[in-house]
Amino acid sequence: MKIDILSLFPDMFQATLGESIIGKAQESGFLDIKVTDFRDYTTDKHNHVDDAPFGGGAGMLLQPQPIFDAMAAIDKENAGKYPKGRVILMDPAGRRFDQEYAQELSQEEHLTFICGHYEGYDERIRQLVTDEASLGDYVLTGGELAAMVMIDATVRFVPGVLGNMSSPMGDSFSNGLLEYPQYTRPADFRGMKVPEVLTSGNHQKIKEWRMKESLRRTLHRRPDLLKSAKLSRKQQLMLQDIKLDENPDVPD
Amino acid sequence: MKIDILSLFPDMFQATLGESIIGKAQESGFLDIKVTDFRDYTTDKHNHVDDAPFGGGAGMLLQPQPIFDAMAAIDKENAGKYPKGRVILMDPAGRRFDQEYAQELSQEEHLTFICGHYEGYDERIRQLVTDEASLGDYVLTGGELAAMVMIDATVRFVPGVLGNMSSPMGDSFSNGLLEYPQYTRPADFRGMKVPEVLTSGNHQKIKEWRMKESLRRTLHRRPDLLKSAKLSRKQQLMLQDIKLDENPDVPD
Repeated sequence: MKIDILSLFPDMFQATLGESIIGKAQESGFLDIKVTDFRDYTTDKHNHVDDAPFGGGAGMLLQPQPIFDAMAAIDKENAGKYPKGRVILMDPAGRRFDQEYAQELSQEEHLTFICGHYEGYDERIRQLVTDEASLGDYVLTGGELAAMVMIDATVRFVPGVLGNMSSPMGDSFSNGLLEYPQYTRPADFRGMKVPEVLTSGNHQKIKEWRMKESLRRTLHRRPDLLKSAKLSRKQQLMLQDIKLDENPDVPD
Repeated sequence: MKIDILSLFPDMFQATLGESIIGKAQESGFLDIKVTDFRDYTTDKHNHVDDAPFGGGAGMLLQPQPIFDAMAAIDKENAGKYPKGRVILMDPAGRRFDQEYAQELSQEEHLTFICGHYEGYDERIRQLVTDEASLGDYVLTGGELAAMVMIDATVRFVPGVLGNMSSPMGDSFSNGLLEYPQYTRPADFRGMKVPEVLTSGNHQKIKEWRMKESLRRTLHRRPDLLKSAKLSRKQQLMLQDIKLDENPDVPD
């Protein structure tokens, strides 16, 4: 997968995307990430990429010219090597990013992220994009962090990227439930002990305990997920058990 | 505000939090961010910070010891200088991060973020935290990016941090509506022109156009926001106008 990023802060990506899984995926050739500083494409003699809004108001807006021209250069560079693919602009009004969206993007051969900064961007820049995406209902200083988050979550689904690590299917959300509590050594840490079943060696019991605790945590903390999760008959019975255990007097 | 971060990847924060607004806020003393590599606190002779889960399963979990000991060192260092403050763990089951949560955190004098990595962490680590937070329903490689996003969105509300830039109140969400389209120079970019009203110099008309377009965009793209937004009588009438314009035959 090729990922192009248009940003005024290319250094932000170096350290972050170079570390850990994404760094390894680049080394092993699963991923080719290129950051383009669109300031390099400005025709302004002072290298400005932003200007005041028409109609007045505080703040500066990104101008269309540098971004249009940087995009044309990226298209030229990728021509014949990668399809045009989706072009993503981070925008608070955009489609909310989630696991399904990440999986969808992971099917593409080429993604381009446009990272705004400052107070906003000229409306005409939207003409370049196929996707407007939002991480959530909060405002960030720039689109860089949001793009990194989307890239990280997306790239996990690209075959080969996670390597020996557990598949993303084992994670929370991928099966529609929250993960069960996990414990590692030591078995007794300063008086805090791991649940006995986990050191029992009884695999059937461990499996049941985990399934039950996964359901319990989801019930307590994200009951909304239970509505869309496809529960087996066994899981449905377990869920009833949990409710009965905790509220013996309340009929279901 | 003092922000402590526990992470195995301290370099990730350097470039990202050093740039732009957060970097400036650190220089001007509004913000003091310190990243602690909790690998420095492991008592394991091979410097391991993770181990296999009790009860079996793929992946490695962060052990409690290095994180408990790093936290104790942070507490000692801050004693008498900053209150203990809130300790935030990124967790998919956590409270969904949003603008209100960011504002709440911005009132604190001291925040500590624990960034997990690998497949998960030992359940006992939760005993150290006051907040479990989630950016959204997607899985990230580590908590670092999520912590950066939360810090960025939070720090914008710390008085003085945004400096001369527009206050966060001017942004989308802060007034409950999406922002109106914005334009900057040139007025005609490759045939794409800015709306005439914006170059008219008529401030009353510009104000009305912006209010209407803000309502229109919110109506089209995030109608859910209209339910909770406190609209003035004028805005309510405008919204009716927009609906009538677009759907003259459908009674409201």
